[in-house]
Amino acid sequence: MRSPEHSLPEGERSGTGTEKKQHFPIPALKEDSIRIIPLGGVEEIGRNMTMIEFRDDIIVIDMGFQFPEDDTPGIDYILPNTRYLEERKAKIKAVIITHGHLDHVGGIPYIMNRIGNPPLYTRNLTSLMIRKRQEEFPHLQPFEIKVVEKEDRLRIGSLVVRFFGVSHTIPDAMGIIIETPYGNLVTPGDFKLDHVDNVVTEKEEESYAVFDKEKTLLLLGESTNIDNPGFSTPERLVHKNLEDIIRDIKGRLIIGTFSSQFERMMHIINVAEKLNKKIVVEGRSMRTNIDIAIAANLIKPKEGTIILSQDIDNYPPDRVVILSTGAQGEEFAALMRMANKSHKNIRFTKRDTVLLSSSIIPGNEKTVQKLKDNIARHGAKIIHYRTSDVYIHSTGHANRGEIEWLHKKLRPKFFIPIHGHHYMLRVHADLALSLGTPEKNIVVPDNSMIIEIQNKGEIITALKEKAPDGPVMVDGFAVGDMQEVVLRDRQMLAEDGMFVIIASINTTTGKLKKSPDIISRGFVYLRESQELLHQTRIIIKKSIEEATAGMHPINFDFVKGTTTDAVARFLFQKTAKRPIVIPVLLGV
Amino acid sequence: MRSPEHSLPEGERSGTGTEKKQHFPIPALKEDSIRIIPLGGVEEIGRNMTMIEFRDDIIVIDMGFQFPEDDTPGIDYILPNTRYLEERKAKIKAVIITHGHLDHVGGIPYIMNRIGNPPLYTRNLTSLMIRKRQEEFPHLQPFEIKVVEKEDRLRIGSLVVRFFGVSHTIPDAMGIIIETPYGNLVTPGDFKLDHVDNVVTEKEEESYAVFDKEKTLLLLGESTNIDNPGFSTPERLVHKNLEDIIRDIKGRLIIGTFSSQFERMMHIINVAEKLNKKIVVEGRSMRTNIDIAIAANLIKPKEGTIILSQDIDNYPPDRVVILSTGAQGEEFAALMRMANKSHKNIRFTKRDTVLLSSSIIPGNEKTVQKLKDNIARHGAKIIHYRTSDVYIHSTGHANRGEIEWLHKKLRPKFFIPIHGHHYMLRVHADLALSLGTPEKNIVVPDNSMIIEIQNKGEIITALKEKAPDGPVMVDGFAVGDMQEVVLRDRQMLAEDGMFVIIASINTTTGKLKKSPDIISRGFVYLRESQELLHQTRIIIKKSIEEATAGMHPINFDFVKGTTTDAVARFLFQKTAKRPIVIPVLLGV
Repeated sequence: MRSPEHSLPEGERSGTGTEKKQHFPIPALKEDSIRIIPLGGVEEIGRNMTMIEFRDDIIVIDMGFQFPEDDTPGIDYILPNTRYLEERKAKIKAVIITHGHLDHVGGIPYIMNRIGNPPLYTRNLTSLMIRKRQEEFPHLQPFEIKVVEKEDRLRIGSLVVRFFGVSHTIPDAMGIIIETPYGNLVTPGDFKLDHVDNVVTEKEEESYAVFDKEKTLLLLGESTNIDNPGFSTPERLVHKNLEDIIRDIKGRLIIGTFSSQFERMMHIINVAEKLNKKIVVEGRSMRTNIDIAIAANLIKPKEGTIILSQDIDNYPPDRVVILSTGAQGEEFAALMRMANKSHKNIRFTKRDTVLLSSSIIPGNEKTVQKLKDNIARHGAKIIHYRTSDVYIHSTGHANRGEIEWLHKKLRPKFFIPIHGHHYMLRVHADLALSLGTPEKNIVVPDNSMIIEIQNKGEIITALKEKAPDGPVMVDGFAVGDMQEVVLRDRQMLAEDGMFVIIASINTTTGKLKKSPDIISRGFVYLRESQELLHQTRIIIKKSIEEATAGMHPINFDFVKGTTTDAVARFLFQKTAKRPIVIPVLLGV
Repeated sequence: MRSPEHSLPEGERSGTGTEKKQHFPIPALKEDSIRIIPLGGVEEIGRNMTMIEFRDDIIVIDMGFQFPEDDTPGIDYILPNTRYLEERKAKIKAVIITHGHLDHVGGIPYIMNRIGNPPLYTRNLTSLMIRKRQEEFPHLQPFEIKVVEKEDRLRIGSLVVRFFGVSHTIPDAMGIIIETPYGNLVTPGDFKLDHVDNVVTEKEEESYAVFDKEKTLLLLGESTNIDNPGFSTPERLVHKNLEDIIRDIKGRLIIGTFSSQFERMMHIINVAEKLNKKIVVEGRSMRTNIDIAIAANLIKPKEGTIILSQDIDNYPPDRVVILSTGAQGEEFAALMRMANKSHKNIRFTKRDTVLLSSSIIPGNEKTVQKLKDNIARHGAKIIHYRTSDVYIHSTGHANRGEIEWLHKKLRPKFFIPIHGHHYMLRVHADLALSLGTPEKNIVVPDNSMIIEIQNKGEIITALKEKAPDGPVMVDGFAVGDMQEVVLRDRQMLAEDGMFVIIASINTTTGKLKKSPDIISRGFVYLRESQELLHQTRIIIKKSIEEATAGMHPINFDFVKGTTTDAVARFLFQKTAKRPIVIPVLLGV
C-alpha cells in the first residue's frame, strides 16, 4: 500500500510558502548614521511598530497587531515582521509604548519574548493595561515594565529620550522625542488636538511648546485621518452632548462604544453618577478597562453606582445607563446578545434608546447593519453617529488641519509619514511638500524599508536593501510567516470545498477493486447530487484504469495526476465549481 | 472493505439543510382582498421583487438578485424565494420591471423559467439590457418582452397598469400604478428627485402630477437612503463638475465609475466629444452598456470618438479620457489591472489623474483602499468622492427629504416600506407615521410576509401565515435553498481547514496494518508540523486499537466516532484550531 501522505499535500509541494524573497545583505550601520525601520503600520491600519537604531543602540517604538483581513481566513492577528530585531537582540535597549490601544500594544505578548524581553517603558495606565493582558499568557517569560512620567528624561545608551503628553481617546498617551547628536527624532504617536473653532487650546500649545525652541531633525507622523479635511470634533463636545442625552433621556439608555475609548467611558460613568443614575457595565473588555481605570485612580465611582445586570429591574428605566461593548456588531458581544435575545438579563424594549457612540470600522458595515436591524426589531430607538444631529462620537486621530498644525509647529527637516495605507502616506507626504519640506527630505515608507539619516543628519535615504519582511500571522498557537499555502487552501476550500477520492487498485491488474469512495465537504449538497457522484465514480474508474493499462509497476503519482485532472474537469463542467480534488490511491 | 462515503458526510447527516420551517397553510385569497408579498429586498439591499395578487391575477414587480455576503462563501448570487409563484404559475399575468439595474433584473435568467415565462413588460432600454443578458444563458427558454412607454395603459386581467417616469441613474426608469377597484397601488421603484435648493423641478412635478388628482390606496416606497437627511445631490451638479474637470484637466484623466451609471457614462462621452477628446472604454460591462446606449439611440458618438486602448499613445494625454469599470476595487476589473500593472495597454503615470466617481458599496472599503494604494504607487493623483470639494458622485436614491416629498404628494392610505434592511424600513415607517399615516395603516414587511388589503380596501394586515421563504442561492450551476450545510462546511474549512485520516484495520485483530496516513489542507503548515503529525498518528493508532480491542465484528461507526473525537481534541490542544476531522477506516 502506498502512503498517500508524502505525495498528497500538492499545494504544499508546489507552494510558495517556503520561498523567501531575495534580500540583499543588509549593510552595517555607519557611526554617523541613524537607521529607522517602520516594521509595521505603514501599509495598513494597525500593527504599528517602528525601530530606531543608532550606533550600539536600538529603541523600539510601539508593538501593535492588526486584525485579520478578508484574505487571511482563520487568522487571529497579524504581527509586524520582527526578524531584524530578533537577529540583533543585544542592541535593543528599550521598547517604548506610546499608549494602550491594541494597534500599539497588541503584539507585545507575541513579540517581547522573541526579541529578548528588553525593558519596556511606558506611562502608568498603559503599563496596567499591558500587565493585565499578559495575565492571559501565563506561560510567557515576564519582562520589566518601567513606568515613566511625561516629564521624565531617560538616557538610553547613547541616546536621550523625552516625552510629551498628547490628546487621544485614552489617558496617558504620549509622544516621544529621541535626542541624537544630529537633532531630535519626534513622533506624537496617535494624537488629536483639542481646539475651539480650529484654534488649538492653550493647554495643547503648552504640551508642544518644547518644539518652539528645539529643532526637529525627523518627524514620524501618523496619517490615519489625513483624508479628512479640517479639524476633528473635540472629544469635549461629544462629552457635552452625551451628558445632555444622559440627563434628558426618557426611558432606558444603552450606550454602545469601544472599551478602548477610555476618556468617553470614564466621562459617561462620572456624568451618570452626578445625575444619580446607575451604571450597568456589559462586556468583558469594558469591565476590565473600567477596573483598570479605577486601579489607575482615573475614576472613583461610589459604592453602588455600578450595578449588576441582574439588579437592573430594581431601578426605574430612566435611572439606569447601560454601557456596553459591541457597537461594531460583533457576534458575541453584549449589545448583539441583547439584540438577539440571548443576553441573560437584558432585553430591549420599545421604550429603550440605543446610542451607538462609535464610527463604523471599515469592513464592519454589514455586522453593524445586522445589529441595527436586530435592535430595530424590538422597536427600540437608535441614535447613531451618522444621523444624530449632535456629535455623539469623534475620532481619536488628527484630521488634516491638525496634522498641518503639527508640521508647522515642528518644522522638521526630514519627514516620514507612518500609520496608514500607502495612499494615505502619499497624501500626507504631499501635505508636507506643500508646507515646504523638500521632496528629497521625505521618505514614504513600506514595511521593513531601511531608512537612514546619513552624514551626521545631512540627508535621508531609503536603502535598496530591505529588512526581513512579510506579515507574521497568529493562527491559533502558531505564530509564523509560512502560511501562504495554508491561506490559499483555506480560500479555495471556502469557495468550492473539497473532494477526496479513495480508490483501491489491484497492483497486478491495475483494475479497481471496487467502486471508488468519495468524501466531499463544502462543494455541493451531496444528498441531491447522487447522479453527479455516480457519474464521477465512472470517470474515476475509467481514468485510473486507462492510465494503469499495461503499466508495470504502477506509477501512482502519474495516475493521481491524470485522475485529479479528469475529475476536476468533469466536476467543473457539471457544476461550475472547482473543489480541491485529492486522490487517495491504495495499491492492494 | 467499508464504504466510507455513506457514513462520512456527517455534517450532512446531522444537517439542517433539509429541515424546512413549519409554515401554516396559506389561506385562499378572498374576492375583495388584495395580496401583496415582498419576496425579496425588504431584509437586505438587493434581490428586489414584489408580488401583487388580486382575484385571478398575479403581477410581479422586479426580479433582482443580491450579491453574496460574508456568511455565504463561494455563492455567486442570492435570489428571492419564488416558490409561492412557482405554485401559482397560471395566475401570473405579467412581470413588470421598473429599470435595468441588477438588483431589479439580476434574477430574471434564474427565475423566469421557473415561474412559467409570463410576459415581461418594461421600457426600451431595460428591455435591451435584459435581452443582452439573456444571451449569456443560451440554454434557457426564451420569453416574451413587451416594450411599454410610460404613457401606456395596460389591462392585465382585472387590473389596469399605468406608469410614470422617475429620475434615477439610468434612463427609462419608471414607477408603476396598479388600478384596483379599491384604489391605486403605487411604487416609484428606485427614484430620486431633481431639484434646485430642495425645490423639486417643474419637470419632476409634471411626472408626479397624476397623484394630485388620484387617490393612492397603497404606497410601496423604497428606503435605501432614508437615513440620509435632506435632499440628495442632483446628478445635474455632478455632470457640471465632471464637465469642468474633463475640460480643465492637465494630463490624462481616468474616470472610474459603475457601468450601471448610464446617465453619467453617457454624459461623460458627450462632454468629451464636445471638448474634442477621445474616449477609451475599459471593462466589458462598460463596453456592453455603451453599445446598448448607442443601440437605444441615447447617445450617438461620432466615428472615431471612442478609440481602442492600444491606440491611446497616438494622442496627447490631455486629449484622452479613459472611462473604466472597477471603482470598487474589483480584483480583475480594468482599473485594478491598470493599477497593478497587469493591463495590456494602459499603465498609470504620475501625470495621470484618477477620478473615482462612485461611493463605496458597504463591504468594499478594503478593496477600494487597495485600489487607491496601488494607484498611489504610480504617483497618480486620485480624486474621490469623500475628499473632492465638488460633487463628483451622487446617489441614485431619494434621501429622506425627497421621500418625505413623495409621501406628501401621494398621501397614501396604506404604506409598506420596501428596499432596505429592517432598520431602514422602520425608520421609513416612522417617517410615514410622523407625516400622519396611522400606525394601523403601515406594515413593516419581512421577505415572504403575506400582506393583505382586505374588506374592499378598508384595512391592511399581515397574515400569520408566510409564503415559502429563505434565500435561494446561485452556486455555480446549482440554484437552490438547500445549501446551509454546505455553507457551514465552507465556513469551517475557511477557518481551520480539514484533516483526513486514512487507516487500514485488520478486521480479525483490530490492529492497524501500518501507520495511518494523513491528508490535511488549510489547517497548519505541514512541512513544519512533522512532530504534530507524528504524535497524531500515535493518537490515531491508540484510539482505534483501544476501541477495537475485543470487538467482533468491528463497529466501524463507533470507532470512527471515538477516533474523530480523540484526534479533534488533540489537534485543538496542540494548535488551538478545529479542522474538520474525517476518518476513513478501511477494513482489510
